[in-house]
Amino acid sequence: MARQDFSFFHTLRVRWAEVDMQAIVFNGHYLTYFDVAFTEYWREAGLPGALLQAEGGCEMFARKATIEYLAPARFDDVLDIGVRCAAFGRSSVRFVIEIFRGDAHLISGELTYVYADTSIRKGVPLPQEWRERLARIEKIAPGAT
Amino acid sequence: MARQDFSFFHTLRVRWAEVDMQAIVFNGHYLTYFDVAFTEYWREAGLPGALLQAEGGCEMFARKATIEYLAPARFDDVLDIGVRCAAFGRSSVRFVIEIFRGDAHLISGELTYVYADTSIRKGVPLPQEWRERLARIEKIAPGAT
Amino acid sequence: MARQDFSFFHTLRVRWAEVDMQAIVFNGHYLTYFDVAFTEYWREAGLPGALLQAEGGCEMFARKATIEYLAPARFDDVLDIGVRCAAFGRSSVRFVIEIFRGDAHLISGELTYVYADTSIRKGVPLPQEWRERLARIEKIAPGAT
Amino acid sequence: MARQDFSFFHTLRVRWAEVDMQAIVFNGHYLTYFDVAFTEYWREAGLPGALLQAEGGCEMFARKATIEYLAPARFDDVLDIGVRCAAFGRSSVRFVIEIFRGDAHLISGELTYVYADTSIRKGVPLPQEWRERLARIEKIAPGAT
Repeated sequence: MARQDFSFFHTLRVRWAEVDMQAIVFNGHYLTYFDVAFTEYWREAGLPGALLQAEGGCEMFARKATIEYLAPARFDDVLDIGVRCAAFGRSSVRFVIEIFRGDAHLISGELTYVYADTSIRKGVPLPQEWRERLARIEKIAPGAT
Repeated sequence: MARQDFSFFHTLRVRWAEVDMQAIVFNGHYLTYFDVAFTEYWREAGLPGALLQAEGGCEMFARKATIEYLAPARFDDVLDIGVRCAAFGRSSVRFVIEIFRGDAHLISGELTYVYADTSIRKGVPLPQEWRERLARIEKIAPGAT
Repeated sequence: MARQDFSFFHTLRVRWAEVDMQAIVFNGHYLTYFDVAFTEYWREAGLPGALLQAEGGCEMFARKATIEYLAPARFDDVLDIGVRCAAFGRSSVRFVIEIFRGDAHLISGELTYVYADTSIRKGVPLPQEWRERLARIEKIAPGAT
Repeated sequence: MARQDFSFFHTLRVRWAEVDMQAIVFNGHYLTYFDVAFTEYWREAGLPGALLQAEGGCEMFARKATIEYLAPARFDDVLDIGVRCAAFGRSSVRFVIEIFRGDAHLISGELTYVYADTSIRKGVPLPQEWRERLARIEKIAPGAT
């Protein structure tokens, strides 16, 4: 996806502690960036983290992550992280996340979360209200998973 | 893949700082575990990290990572991380990495690395000697990428 | 020190991955926050990180850190990190760093850095220009170490 | 303190992701090392982490940390982390932690924890049994705080 396909971006700056001896961001830290952007995306949708955790003992759990490393981010880089809800299913939701430094496209990723009852760790239906809130901030309506 | 398909395992214990408010390992830290196990795999093959970095200005860069979260690891868990070289190509190499806690299969992952000239960040041929060393510790010979 | 003693603050938000099972920021991550704020302090002084690294093979190395945990920061908290250069010596520099959440004072810390020649790891004199730049952004002139 | 003053050591290897662009361990990660060694120290005393958390809603909270950076640890270094309980007070306990690479002394540190009731975050008396267990594994009996 290109920059213009995202309605939501979160911007952050690469920290010293995130850069390794190759002078590039360690490959695992992009999942932290995804998570930070994801938190801000939900806030934008009017569903801050505290709220997400509080719905009757249900929580979002990561189910699958994919990251393609196209070009490396470096210390002090300012990164724009685009988040888009690509699919909103019964109990799972899939996000496309891409990271840009200016016009350079550095990272392509996907994250699938399952909404589950924490006591039994089984998927439960996502609140209908969430679908509506997400649809409101997305240019392209999310499909099914 | 099942436990018996791996010739190499690295064992580590989950640290307090790696566990989040959901009382499970934060999803990004599994890539750190992959990296730790990967370092030990190369050591087992007689190719310690220092050596990998020193071959004429060439280095391994992560190209793609995939993680499936089947079940969560928790604080103080002892994890066995199986690493298998699934494909050894001209300039890239693909690893299958799976994490077990006893018999429980927690994580399935893949990591593709490209061997590149650091000055130009372009793929260069992997040393033939590395293929031989890897083949020696694998039950199943790595295929092509 | 109180909030009003600081001329410089950097603001950041606590990330999900930084919070542990006690639902508070893991004690080690405050040093990452110190480092992030420290980077921004130097930028404010007109001495960005890249510049700091490039002065004839000399670099800043942490020599001592102290952290007092007065009250915990939690997920999604917005923190104001005050940085003050308390002492500027021949080859070492001491910073006082305090973290606030609104009016609540959460963390008191100190960080001493040595400016050293990386080849021999021995202290060398700090550039006179740096002292001038730091003095310019501080309300209270830094003392000697 | 010298190596021989410690009755307890935990050994770990520096991970790639913990090393920064200066090719040394980032200063904050030593607190993670302290914490890992601390967990193992309690286990040695017969008080594993799960137990520590479960005593009637009381938990250990970091109150103060000090780190002196004498010499840097590097990627793949094997570190011996000595932990000694230096003082065991009514509701707080102070540990001296030092890190060695072979004979080289790299880090000196101290960590003070407070045992507190999590609901009110106020110090409560440490269990008498803990004092006895710690005394059993220490060469030098812990003093008062």
